[in-house]
Amino acid sequence: METEHVKQTDSLPLPESFQSKDNGEGPLLPAETAGKTITCKAAVAWGAKRALVIEEVQVDPPNTMEVRIKITHTSLCHTDLSFWMVEEESTFPRILGHEGAGIVESVGEGITDLMPGDHVIPFFTGECGNCVFCKSKKTNQCEKFKIDLTRRLMRSDEKTRFSIGGKPVYHFMATSTFSEYTVVDYACVAKIDPEAPLDKVCLLGCGIATGFGAVMNLTEIGQGSTVAVFGLGTVGLAVAQGASLRGASTIIGIDTNPHKFTKAKAMGVTECINPKEYEKPIQDVIRDMSNGGVDYSFECIGNTDVLYQAFFSTNEPLGLTVLLGLDTSPRKICLHPLDLFSGRRIVASILGGVKGKSQLPQLVDKFMHKELDVEEFITHTLPFSEVNKAFDLLLEGNCLRLSRNGLIGDCFEYSPTDMPHIDSETKPGLLSKEVMPTFSPINQSSKNCTQNSEFEIDVSCEEDDMGMSEVDDMLCWDEVFTKETQFPDYNGLLEMSEMAKSLESN
Amino acid sequence: METEHVKQTDSLPLPESFQSKDNGEGPLLPAETAGKTITCKAAVAWGAKRALVIEEVQVDPPNTMEVRIKITHTSLCHTDLSFWMVEEESTFPRILGHEGAGIVESVGEGITDLMPGDHVIPFFTGECGNCVFCKSKKTNQCEKFKIDLTRRLMRSDEKTRFSIGGKPVYHFMATSTFSEYTVVDYACVAKIDPEAPLDKVCLLGCGIATGFGAVMNLTEIGQGSTVAVFGLGTVGLAVAQGASLRGASTIIGIDTNPHKFTKAKAMGVTECINPKEYEKPIQDVIRDMSNGGVDYSFECIGNTDVLYQAFFSTNEPLGLTVLLGLDTSPRKICLHPLDLFSGRRIVASILGGVKGKSQLPQLVDKFMHKELDVEEFITHTLPFSEVNKAFDLLLEGNCLRLSRNGLIGDCFEYSPTDMPHIDSETKPGLLSKEVMPTFSPINQSSKNCTQNSEFEIDVSCEEDDMGMSEVDDMLCWDEVFTKETQFPDYNGLLEMSEMAKSLESN
Repeated sequence: METEHVKQTDSLPLPESFQSKDNGEGPLLPAETAGKTITCKAAVAWGAKRALVIEEVQVDPPNTMEVRIKITHTSLCHTDLSFWMVEEESTFPRILGHEGAGIVESVGEGITDLMPGDHVIPFFTGECGNCVFCKSKKTNQCEKFKIDLTRRLMRSDEKTRFSIGGKPVYHFMATSTFSEYTVVDYACVAKIDPEAPLDKVCLLGCGIATGFGAVMNLTEIGQGSTVAVFGLGTVGLAVAQGASLRGASTIIGIDTNPHKFTKAKAMGVTECINPKEYEKPIQDVIRDMSNGGVDYSFECIGNTDVLYQAFFSTNEPLGLTVLLGLDTSPRKICLHPLDLFSGRRIVASILGGVKGKSQLPQLVDKFMHKELDVEEFITHTLPFSEVNKAFDLLLEGNCLRLSRNGLIGDCFEYSPTDMPHIDSETKPGLLSKEVMPTFSPINQSSKNCTQNSEFEIDVSCEEDDMGMSEVDDMLCWDEVFTKETQFPDYNGLLEMSEMAKSLESN
Repeated sequence: METEHVKQTDSLPLPESFQSKDNGEGPLLPAETAGKTITCKAAVAWGAKRALVIEEVQVDPPNTMEVRIKITHTSLCHTDLSFWMVEEESTFPRILGHEGAGIVESVGEGITDLMPGDHVIPFFTGECGNCVFCKSKKTNQCEKFKIDLTRRLMRSDEKTRFSIGGKPVYHFMATSTFSEYTVVDYACVAKIDPEAPLDKVCLLGCGIATGFGAVMNLTEIGQGSTVAVFGLGTVGLAVAQGASLRGASTIIGIDTNPHKFTKAKAMGVTECINPKEYEKPIQDVIRDMSNGGVDYSFECIGNTDVLYQAFFSTNEPLGLTVLLGLDTSPRKICLHPLDLFSGRRIVASILGGVKGKSQLPQLVDKFMHKELDVEEFITHTLPFSEVNKAFDLLLEGNCLRLSRNGLIGDCFEYSPTDMPHIDSETKPGLLSKEVMPTFSPINQSSKNCTQNSEFEIDVSCEEDDMGMSEVDDMLCWDEVFTKETQFPDYNGLLEMSEMAKSLESN
């Protein structure tokens, strides 16, 4: 595509409409960029488990029914980590990030509900608004724009809008918020209250919406309901917050990291338990605590063994398990038909069943009316230059959500000739935490970068794998063995490996 | 228990109330039997896979909150067969049968909603009416009286009401309708319209209620819905009837027995397919037929492989699979979390979610108002003396429902000294249909019995295992191997064994 190029650092006058919507987050870009390729900064993942590199990328203008967004804030979610670790090499280079907020820079042909200057949250599972599923109250999985984890190109022309020196850089989860500018389908943008602080509501693009939305959309939690929340990361805490708002009498939080318990109790959890402190299976402990089982359990981790525990933590015959965490390993949950005849059910939800375009603005309004707490989820603020440190924090399990404020582009100055930057920090083997990849906090190639205080960032809250507290023999062990070599499960894999070995020797 | 004994063949005068409710089905028993042990005829299963034997049994009076019922008609269901084949020896001798109708002979202390002479349908998953689950609209699984397949004794005192010469004979599914008299918990009896023909509505105690009720209670099938019904036995045809009544536009019937297709089409199925006629997995065929998958699928067989097929026959993201058939093998269905994130769900239902005490009378009313067809399900009428032939018919898969009319006791005359009768027809091995147990149509010990034309019986409609048309490699093969030796799966096991062997050799 031959389009005029504009560097985002060019200092052009702002159009009136933009100036009026400036929330004090720095100068906005001129509408003169519309229709032109923008060169800006992005954190590029060059390969699995390699440190991200801040690069100058070219961002093409939006195609028909697409929107180009200036991302002002982004936060980090465990799913970014998962896909940074397990994806095939062919998907790289790629711009990760799927939880952000920003301002519409320009719109493609056919867009009528958005205009430059609108404050927006991009989201990864679209809502076209017209298909049979968008018109159904039962699902948020749009016929055309539902999440596609394998997709790395735009739907309209099967091309990428990102490039570096003419070579393609791929999209991620229809959002790619680790870039100063991104292009998304119209169905993947929610227009929100322009008064809402973007450095806070950027968190609503994934984790909080998933947990809070799941309670509201998928359950009938009400006065006196009993709930078990597996994993006290952002999703789990948002579940607790929603369940508490609905009047649940018992909200049991389960996590192997007791450092999370104080915050969990502040956010609605009534009892915290650590599976490591019990000899018997945690599902038995929970059933004992809840007169035979809770009404609702939530798997907020993405661990099939935990899903199994969550399932059997609920009561017969009304128990509902809500699966929110995605286990990217090939393992399956194996249930006997009698387990289903017990009356227990599982429902899985993407983004908590939230229809992004229509419901994310409602969540923003709830935040503005102080019905939904977002700030509690922000535990760290980092400059974007430390995106790799943010990954480390997430891996360590001591933060909830990471978000950046400020404009990353201001921080780095590269020329395209610097690329590609292949970081040498990749570590072999992933069977223990000791060999987890650790990154230099500052990209090795960014020697010219001077850190700018403007870019200190929220680093906050993470999904934490609670580890393999129990692996029941009802699970398929043969698949566990497969998993070990093919699908590193960053947390708990050492324990799993040991358990598998002990099983073999028995 | 020391109680006076009464032989049901004693010819005592009928009380007025009984006479007035006599539907012409033969003389009713006198109320003078109340509080006394009754000696009557029953078909006793003395061991797994042994022919039933018509015996004289003693039936104790009902305990507190129990009801003794004179069973006038009973039909045969595949679940009787399953438990006759797979139960442990310790559960025998046992009186099978769980689909019947009759008249209350006497009631125990505390019973206020039933009285002698009431026409009733006993059912196997009780409704106490007072527990939290009975008060919930979401389940029919009563806290105290829900189905317990391992139970062989009455709940009130953990004793059996059946005996032969003082030795216990065990209950089955809280009903044991293969006896002239049976004792059931108050929660397991539905009082019905006395005008309803008992030889027809006896079928509502299990199969028809399960299929029809599942559509009504568990789905939102409506105008234009698409449905797949796996297994065109009684349950499947009742599903089709319910779905058709609700306005479903497409009802695909799947069975490996094409003889069932004509009746299926008469009862609402719009397209019949035989998995044996397709090379590709039947779930792919159904998805191709239904624009990506049906809205609802029903597993009406009790085969975990078919459950897998049913699950993947539905569409993303709204597909709902309703599991109605019970697979008594230890195999499990193994699903990846992504299979659940697709939006597909499974819900299992016992008795179609029907709350027996409150909803079975409604089904009887539907039958009386010609909204629900029952007679179509009756394909054979046999004398009860041919109960074993009925089992054979069921095994052969050419009948739908078996019911008997008349009183079996009139047909046989034994003395207790004849017992126990151990039939020698037990066959070793169950790996092919050729070695399926076959029974002499008349019990070997009933030489004194003269068949009475009064006792010709409806033999009608059977659940048919549709065989292992597909076993996907996503299933756990190690469990398949276990199954082969421990849990004979009368139909399709040969095919399964061959597939397993071919898998081993690959």
